[in-house]
Amino acid sequence: MKRIAVLTSGGDSSGMNAAVRAVVRSALSSGLEVVGINKGYKGLIDRNYGMMSTRSVSNILQRGGTFLQSARCKEMMEEAGQNLAAENLKGMGVEGLVVIGGDGSLRGALSLHRRGIKTIGIPASIDNDIPYTSMSLGVDTALNNIVYAIDCLKDTASSHDRAFIVEIMGRNCGYLTLVAAIACGAEHALIPETPFNIGRICENLRKRYREGRDNSIILVAEGVATAQEISNQIKDCIGFESRIMVLGHYQRGGSPSSFDRLLGSRFGQGAVQALMEGESGKMIGLSASKMKLTDLEKVLTGKIRPIDKSMVQLSKSLDF
Amino acid sequence: MKRIAVLTSGGDSSGMNAAVRAVVRSALSSGLEVVGINKGYKGLIDRNYGMMSTRSVSNILQRGGTFLQSARCKEMMEEAGQNLAAENLKGMGVEGLVVIGGDGSLRGALSLHRRGIKTIGIPASIDNDIPYTSMSLGVDTALNNIVYAIDCLKDTASSHDRAFIVEIMGRNCGYLTLVAAIACGAEHALIPETPFNIGRICENLRKRYREGRDNSIILVAEGVATAQEISNQIKDCIGFESRIMVLGHYQRGGSPSSFDRLLGSRFGQGAVQALMEGESGKMIGLSASKMKLTDLEKVLTGKIRPIDKSMVQLSKSLDF
Amino acid sequence: MKRIAVLTSGGDSSGMNAAVRAVVRSALSSGLEVVGINKGYKGLIDRNYGMMSTRSVSNILQRGGTFLQSARCKEMMEEAGQNLAAENLKGMGVEGLVVIGGDGSLRGALSLHRRGIKTIGIPASIDNDIPYTSMSLGVDTALNNIVYAIDCLKDTASSHDRAFIVEIMGRNCGYLTLVAAIACGAEHALIPETPFNIGRICENLRKRYREGRDNSIILVAEGVATAQEISNQIKDCIGFESRIMVLGHYQRGGSPSSFDRLLGSRFGQGAVQALMEGESGKMIGLSASKMKLTDLEKVLTGKIRPIDKSMVQLSKSLDF
Amino acid sequence: MKRIAVLTSGGDSSGMNAAVRAVVRSALSSGLEVVGINKGYKGLIDRNYGMMSTRSVSNILQRGGTFLQSARCKEMMEEAGQNLAAENLKGMGVEGLVVIGGDGSLRGALSLHRRGIKTIGIPASIDNDIPYTSMSLGVDTALNNIVYAIDCLKDTASSHDRAFIVEIMGRNCGYLTLVAAIACGAEHALIPETPFNIGRICENLRKRYREGRDNSIILVAEGVATAQEISNQIKDCIGFESRIMVLGHYQRGGSPSSFDRLLGSRFGQGAVQALMEGESGKMIGLSASKMKLTDLEKVLTGKIRPIDKSMVQLSKSLDF
Repeated sequence: MKRIAVLTSGGDSSGMNAAVRAVVRSALSSGLEVVGINKGYKGLIDRNYGMMSTRSVSNILQRGGTFLQSARCKEMMEEAGQNLAAENLKGMGVEGLVVIGGDGSLRGALSLHRRGIKTIGIPASIDNDIPYTSMSLGVDTALNNIVYAIDCLKDTASSHDRAFIVEIMGRNCGYLTLVAAIACGAEHALIPETPFNIGRICENLRKRYREGRDNSIILVAEGVATAQEISNQIKDCIGFESRIMVLGHYQRGGSPSSFDRLLGSRFGQGAVQALMEGESGKMIGLSASKMKLTDLEKVLTGKIRPIDKSMVQLSKSLDF
Repeated sequence: MKRIAVLTSGGDSSGMNAAVRAVVRSALSSGLEVVGINKGYKGLIDRNYGMMSTRSVSNILQRGGTFLQSARCKEMMEEAGQNLAAENLKGMGVEGLVVIGGDGSLRGALSLHRRGIKTIGIPASIDNDIPYTSMSLGVDTALNNIVYAIDCLKDTASSHDRAFIVEIMGRNCGYLTLVAAIACGAEHALIPETPFNIGRICENLRKRYREGRDNSIILVAEGVATAQEISNQIKDCIGFESRIMVLGHYQRGGSPSSFDRLLGSRFGQGAVQALMEGESGKMIGLSASKMKLTDLEKVLTGKIRPIDKSMVQLSKSLDF
Repeated sequence: MKRIAVLTSGGDSSGMNAAVRAVVRSALSSGLEVVGINKGYKGLIDRNYGMMSTRSVSNILQRGGTFLQSARCKEMMEEAGQNLAAENLKGMGVEGLVVIGGDGSLRGALSLHRRGIKTIGIPASIDNDIPYTSMSLGVDTALNNIVYAIDCLKDTASSHDRAFIVEIMGRNCGYLTLVAAIACGAEHALIPETPFNIGRICENLRKRYREGRDNSIILVAEGVATAQEISNQIKDCIGFESRIMVLGHYQRGGSPSSFDRLLGSRFGQGAVQALMEGESGKMIGLSASKMKLTDLEKVLTGKIRPIDKSMVQLSKSLDF
Repeated sequence: MKRIAVLTSGGDSSGMNAAVRAVVRSALSSGLEVVGINKGYKGLIDRNYGMMSTRSVSNILQRGGTFLQSARCKEMMEEAGQNLAAENLKGMGVEGLVVIGGDGSLRGALSLHRRGIKTIGIPASIDNDIPYTSMSLGVDTALNNIVYAIDCLKDTASSHDRAFIVEIMGRNCGYLTLVAAIACGAEHALIPETPFNIGRICENLRKRYREGRDNSIILVAEGVATAQEISNQIKDCIGFESRIMVLGHYQRGGSPSSFDRLLGSRFGQGAVQALMEGESGKMIGLSASKMKLTDLEKVLTGKIRPIDKSMVQLSKSLDF
């Protein structure tokens, strides 16, 4: 193997730059050449790329987002686009590819593996919905951002005895919402994985109110409902006014945490090492503090990373 | 003067705790007793208060919000409530009062001054809409929070070539929006004080797009329009999709900046000193780096703190 | 079991409050009473304690340090002190104890277990030197603080083409130093676990200088040498002036990261659960994302948590 | 005027990038060309510079330090060097120059003004020691960094009942130390402008100890003594052990605060405007919230910006 390529795809997450840097520097230090693809699969199809040097990745470790940029790419969801992408890679003399992104991005990686490009995927998604890795890249930074915002909100909530409904990212996966609730001492966490009873929540709000603790924070994963919907339901149920807060894209970015810089660096180096050992069609993940490869097919069977039941229990027992 | 009282009222802002602490410790060190009123004017009417010691205000300097709490109080907007509040203060033997809050709170302070309570107001409002002070308490912390969130957003915007419309607090006053735009390098700041032309903004978006810079950040003060409305107008005008972000109550809180801790401390000490010098019916403000008193009547004539034209110009010239 | 106690001991670390909160609330929600011991083993010997309610642990989750306080306690290192501590616990009717701290604290826990008090230890130490847990409480927050400080320093280093030697906590364990080096892109990490060659470091500084990259960051664990010593050695070797920075106690504190709040909460709940299941003389640890008990004797055999060789390798390859 | 130049010199401070960006964009938007000088006066003498475009200053607003870099330059302190610098500027066709830096840098600016280069200085120095401006660029960010570090330290100090001596930048000027003491609630601030009595400080430590409040934070400006010296004096005086913390270069850097981004932007634009209006040999400063020019000769007469006596008083009364 003489030349590899790297791209970031899908929604950006903090730590992607650390991963790209580690791919580039690990590869260069092993004598490989590295092509950086701009704007994800779109750049692969549009032949938007350049050769990377050690300096290309200086001073990016501390920056959020992805300096290689990302973009949506419908072509990559169809055979024709996948074929073109594989041909372009071969045309550049690229024998190995590292794809950094979420499940859609990993699906693209699998399609290129099937077309003869040795491909390794790195799981990057703030939702933490990708299975076979205990953490995806960007989750820890997102959590710290969320926790900072909710800490701020609590100052206001406790100054005014107010209830806030906070909407948090996560379509199918309540990980961010659940962990943020534990980390911030929120009263309730509404997540897609477990049913909730709005009547019980209202009953608890009433009970807190009677006890003189009428400030409350309720977190809701976007996959469950909007913050506005929950606020309306509470008003309909007990006439109680609550404020809403939608954290939105603020959750994605910011200078990566130490954890995500380390994780991205380990993922990047591990992916290059896997390619050099002839691996392909696999995702590198974090398992019991170690790097571990799993077949992309297995990762992409459709099951979402399950939520840890003990954490759901923990969230409830701490609101005692 | 033997005994004074202090309360926080209206929307909370970071630095209120520093101000309360300075009122309490300055007064105690001058031999005065201090009563802390809980929940603003409501606590004054409900007789919800307690004596303050040096220790009562330990470890609050670094905390957002107000540990004395705040609340809405309709009674205080009417004669009967104002009379009751003044009577309660006299019943407690309180001769002087420090009121920390926004324009509504200062209006209450004026009404108590007219009822014979020596009263000094401290301007606290993240909007920075109060005249006769160059900065209100909490503005600087709010700006740092806003700037942090928009920095995060820029990581995402530049990773994806996206346009974001960010909605910022400020009903009648565009100060936060304008300064944040300068501080974050936003492309446009839509503020109540100056008209804007949606066609020109769309034209600029198109121009940036042609130049290959299709990420943009547009800030809008809530008093102008919602972020969603601006996003819709842009879509109607040029078919361009933009994302929205509503910063909401996140802007209020968080550990106060160094500036707000210092300002709150100076305001608090200055208010006590003013009371001891027999002043009343005045607001303490920051003017040319010094503390300065202004008659509350003058402050409350209805004019909002005007925006600095040179800053509007600055905002435009930096987007060259 | 009807009544348990909790104490924090040794150097404070961020997340201790989350652990205490989880111990208290988990225990109360299971029908147990909880005694909070102030100032660690010293408070146990001096009978400095109080009953804990749900409210006792409100609003502490976001605070660094330990609100139960910690202290040195020489008595606890001797038989007489250990006997007195055990008697005092029995005198209070305490059947179970949770000890939160580093290896010295866990040693005390073992001595109480041997005196018939059911005892569970929670590993809290920013050094991450405790074996049988992949992370100790406070490490993640310390790393984020260190990374923030070094990011700041890099701004200055690259503005002036300067070399900085940064001294980081860790007497026997280079974990903080190694991870910080990877996370910040430092050129060298000097740790107790692997030998280093000052000549090679000087050679590299010269090489960077010739390439026009004369800013460098070198991290050194306090167990290896002081920053000043390394700076002197470099000066003696190649006449190159470097600046030093000693991070000191700044590393310990600050609002805990999301990770440490979650970890502390899980440790706290897990410790109570273990006590209720009749366990004793064990430490709860994090292993493969799960809670796991290990005999304190095994933990305390003197071996320090080994450093991950692959991370040492990673640190080197990224400085290519 | 067709072409101007800009350089940063002396110790870096946060907000310098905002100032450079504003100089570049304001000038370009007025039809001027802009030359960026690298590494301060050294680059001017070595002819190390390049033409600036709008894009040259993209994405630097949020970064600490100075991307134009700074360096020491002994040549500039002598006639020959000053003559060469002026000739080089003329050789490039540069008619106006903006110098961003501390008092040494402003001295260089004055020497170039005297050699016929129209020159405007921008005060940048974290010490806040430059007169005729209420704030220098970088002071606010430095203060926020200091306050963050001391907040962290207080967590540890109050967890262990410890006294800390913290050494803060400021050779001739105690501004940072004094404001940080007020903002963090430190017990004492030792500054060059006012004498202190170590005996009184020790007496206070003893008194606090008797009252059961034996954690204390004492701040000392580097111009007064080192933290170690103060710690030794206290030990000699009352045998009390204290820990030390030297904040060092950590104080300089980090992403600039909102205030410094705004101030840098205003300074930069104001400097260009002054040049276009034919001004020279002046420093732009902040006075009563407005931009104001002062003759560099007046600025450089040797007097340091005096400390505000009322703030010294404030610092003392809050430690009641």
